[in-house]
Amino acid sequence: MGKKIVIVGGVAGGATAAARLRRLNEEDEIIVLEKGEYISFANCGLPYYIGGVITNRDALLVQTVEGMSKKFNLDIRNLSEATSINREEKTITVTKVDTGETYEEAYDYAILSPGARPIVPPFDGLEEAENVFTLRNIPDTDQIKTWVDEQKPHHAVVIGGGFIGIEMAENLAERGIKVKLVELSDQVMGPVDKEMAGYLHQELRDKRVELIFQDGVEAFLDRGKKVQLDSGKELVSDITIMAIGVRPESELARESGLELGERGGIVVDKSLKTSDDAIYALGDAVEVKDYIQQTPVMVPLAWPANRQGRLVADHINGKNVAYTGTLGTSVARVFGLTVAATGNNEKTLRRLGVTYEAVHVHPASNATYYPGGSPIAMKLIFDPENGNIFGAQAVGRNGVEKRIDVIATAIKGKLTVEDLPDLELSYAPPYSSAKDPVNVAGYAAMNIIEGAAEVVHFHEIDEIVREGGTLIDVREAEEYEAGNIKGAQNIPLGELRGRLEELPKNKPIHVHCQVGLRGYLATRILNNNGFRAINLSGGYKTYTISREM
Amino acid sequence: MGKKIVIVGGVAGGATAAARLRRLNEEDEIIVLEKGEYISFANCGLPYYIGGVITNRDALLVQTVEGMSKKFNLDIRNLSEATSINREEKTITVTKVDTGETYEEAYDYAILSPGARPIVPPFDGLEEAENVFTLRNIPDTDQIKTWVDEQKPHHAVVIGGGFIGIEMAENLAERGIKVKLVELSDQVMGPVDKEMAGYLHQELRDKRVELIFQDGVEAFLDRGKKVQLDSGKELVSDITIMAIGVRPESELARESGLELGERGGIVVDKSLKTSDDAIYALGDAVEVKDYIQQTPVMVPLAWPANRQGRLVADHINGKNVAYTGTLGTSVARVFGLTVAATGNNEKTLRRLGVTYEAVHVHPASNATYYPGGSPIAMKLIFDPENGNIFGAQAVGRNGVEKRIDVIATAIKGKLTVEDLPDLELSYAPPYSSAKDPVNVAGYAAMNIIEGAAEVVHFHEIDEIVREGGTLIDVREAEEYEAGNIKGAQNIPLGELRGRLEELPKNKPIHVHCQVGLRGYLATRILNNNGFRAINLSGGYKTYTISREM
Repeated sequence: MGKKIVIVGGVAGGATAAARLRRLNEEDEIIVLEKGEYISFANCGLPYYIGGVITNRDALLVQTVEGMSKKFNLDIRNLSEATSINREEKTITVTKVDTGETYEEAYDYAILSPGARPIVPPFDGLEEAENVFTLRNIPDTDQIKTWVDEQKPHHAVVIGGGFIGIEMAENLAERGIKVKLVELSDQVMGPVDKEMAGYLHQELRDKRVELIFQDGVEAFLDRGKKVQLDSGKELVSDITIMAIGVRPESELARESGLELGERGGIVVDKSLKTSDDAIYALGDAVEVKDYIQQTPVMVPLAWPANRQGRLVADHINGKNVAYTGTLGTSVARVFGLTVAATGNNEKTLRRLGVTYEAVHVHPASNATYYPGGSPIAMKLIFDPENGNIFGAQAVGRNGVEKRIDVIATAIKGKLTVEDLPDLELSYAPPYSSAKDPVNVAGYAAMNIIEGAAEVVHFHEIDEIVREGGTLIDVREAEEYEAGNIKGAQNIPLGELRGRLEELPKNKPIHVHCQVGLRGYLATRILNNNGFRAINLSGGYKTYTISREM
Repeated sequence: MGKKIVIVGGVAGGATAAARLRRLNEEDEIIVLEKGEYISFANCGLPYYIGGVITNRDALLVQTVEGMSKKFNLDIRNLSEATSINREEKTITVTKVDTGETYEEAYDYAILSPGARPIVPPFDGLEEAENVFTLRNIPDTDQIKTWVDEQKPHHAVVIGGGFIGIEMAENLAERGIKVKLVELSDQVMGPVDKEMAGYLHQELRDKRVELIFQDGVEAFLDRGKKVQLDSGKELVSDITIMAIGVRPESELARESGLELGERGGIVVDKSLKTSDDAIYALGDAVEVKDYIQQTPVMVPLAWPANRQGRLVADHINGKNVAYTGTLGTSVARVFGLTVAATGNNEKTLRRLGVTYEAVHVHPASNATYYPGGSPIAMKLIFDPENGNIFGAQAVGRNGVEKRIDVIATAIKGKLTVEDLPDLELSYAPPYSSAKDPVNVAGYAAMNIIEGAAEVVHFHEIDEIVREGGTLIDVREAEEYEAGNIKGAQNIPLGELRGRLEELPKNKPIHVHCQVGLRGYLATRILNNNGFRAINLSGGYKTYTISREM
């Protein structure tokens, strides 16, 4: 006799769990309840269909109800909402979305994969606005695409600069629409720190997306044709996308008395069990552990949902598996740039009060003599005591996510920054350099740990100069003249050995170059000559981009 | 008082060592002897300059004698050959290449970075041939480029299908020359196994490169205008590139009485010291340990040379560092394809008598619904007992070397195939899938280790059918009709559950699909219904490509 398993939610993790359950067992009765019309669609592809990059709507429907039912011998019921759980009886009340009809379905195990839904505060005028949309599923996508196709909007307002906001800004702009992006904080793309987001701000502005920071929606006026912001600013809008974030769909879990976390996520243990032994939960609706800090987090990304779907199925079938936490590895395309990150960022570490050090480097994506290479801005964050890697961020045109994937793997392999120079990565001129950017970041971090290079950061340098500190710009004279840090004196690296007598021996000498490498060489020369030299990590490039807000 | 260090060879590792030595110490006297005119040039870029991809010759000269001397305060002497070492006296005899003049240079430490030179057997007619070239340095490059520019060859013959042979074949073909590539073995690109090379053979032939396997040069006739092969075949040639391999430049070391390995590489210990405590050696000329098997190997690649250059400088300056072996991670472009590999291949493991298992998978480089994705043929080789990763190989159009770099990192992190599904890699539709190809390869390997999927390999299936084994092709009827394995019976996956009674319960059932996934699903259905099913790893795709020789 097989088990009877009811899965609530047939997208992403729910669909994965269903398929895996069947692969493990031919006998089990597997029912999938999906309140929407579609299962297992390409959530992450929706903005690109609106933008016209993906041209075939069917391509978004990764699995159909019929196809998947047959392939995996599943009982998939769409337009079927689980409206309550009777945990004593082990039954779920199912409401048919189209008829309102209800029935009870018994289970041995239930799996909750309800996902998360866009947050939409009850703004004044929202109900009267016809042109305000959120993007979560296929019907949302159809609505937005139809609106764009038919209304041919000139002006779009995107509220929120996270993944969906950025991807919608890009895809609307690609359709020739003038986009304004409104963000409550002072940067887009929360997974990276502010100075790294600076490159994205530059790219978005280059592509004529107007950025409005530290502002939010106050009200919708004129049936949504005007968006009034907290600052009083009024934006003309032919279409507005609300993408300020998502909230777990945990009402069913709450009403069933399952334990929820502070921010409303369903609490699960390592085997993804809820507080009820017969009920598992996964995906955007659950609270998981941060892989590095082991603090509770909610990470609405596809990889965790997929992985969790598999593990739940395994656990139900008696395998001793565990979900050890989420690193939050992520990537997004922002027009011509790629931004990727893994692990903890500086904001998080500061909030948690964790001691950390960071380096900024700007190596080339591939051999500089080979065409097509471009710099990657990389930030590596680590524990200065033991070299443990907390996280990494990268922005650039090529090979960006490759380096983040390598570091994400290094973290899972418990490698430290000391091991990064030792990673033997593939090199040929079209792909990398003999010293890969990951090696370079590791060398930079090691230099700090070993005391070979003291560094100062972009946000500290102005105050140092204000207080009378010495700052030497070791770039060439032409570079210095094209733009420099206030208070910096220019001594090109090639002249440094001959001009040591100009420098004070009784106080630290701060040096900087364009990206950090020549500055490092200068600190080596100075330190080896009895000075105390401190390099500006990431150089003038990181310094200036941090001002791109 | 500083140390006096003499470096023999100013390219790659030698140049790296020199720069690092100076960064660590301002006092040391650092002399670099380079017998050629140029130091620190872009070895790996040379074929691309000949092909016209790199247009600026100066771009190949990464560092000049003057620039590098000044930047790092080095005494760099080009056209200066170290012709003997007096180890008792700790002196090196230097011969000026242009004048023949000699002098003695004392050292506290010597670093040998002589590199390796192309192997050129004394073929009949070679001396009379004007159109036969090897490619190692800038003068070679200039000669070949001048010959191509001025003689406008129609027919080229490339001898040897390794990195340089393949890159030269591509770059000559890109210049409109009809290329024949002659290779003694039965495949190009030794780092990958034969069936993986099949994709490269296909691509090379698509791009009109003629491949001649299991044949070699017998003689050059007609001043090189004809290349006579061992088989008797005669090839017309306007230009011939000899790229059959390299041999370490270890004469100086041998004559100085330093220990050499069986194949002529300079033997070094973990700190890269030779059998003389005052002499280090690095790069293409040394014998190192294979990182995984700890057997002696010679790996003439840029990453090891660079890394070793750094470590030698560190060790001389009292740092406790070690070079732990070479994984041999490599990548090459072959027209539109990328081929990459890390660790041991099947050929090596078979030769060493190591027990291994392998899986072939064909995941897409990025979300299948997003344009630009293409399949990556991946092979993962591992220890079936404990899941230790021996190596991986991949071929495809996008994202190939990223996956190999991730696996190279996993190996260094001592992760097993069991950990690969747990690697949290970055995903957005332009970059990957929620289940990354590395995760997919890990799942496939885990299925074998856990006994969830028994597999058979491409080279075993014909014999199984010949001996009366059952082989079921679970692809759709149209796929089956378009081409199938002799003796296979077609039962599409969707019909399998309804046709179980057609199958024998008393013997194993071999199944296959196109790439391995549906075959795996079929084995799950069959095993869960009491059959013993065995899947063809990599499916029809790996089976057919293995025949592309």
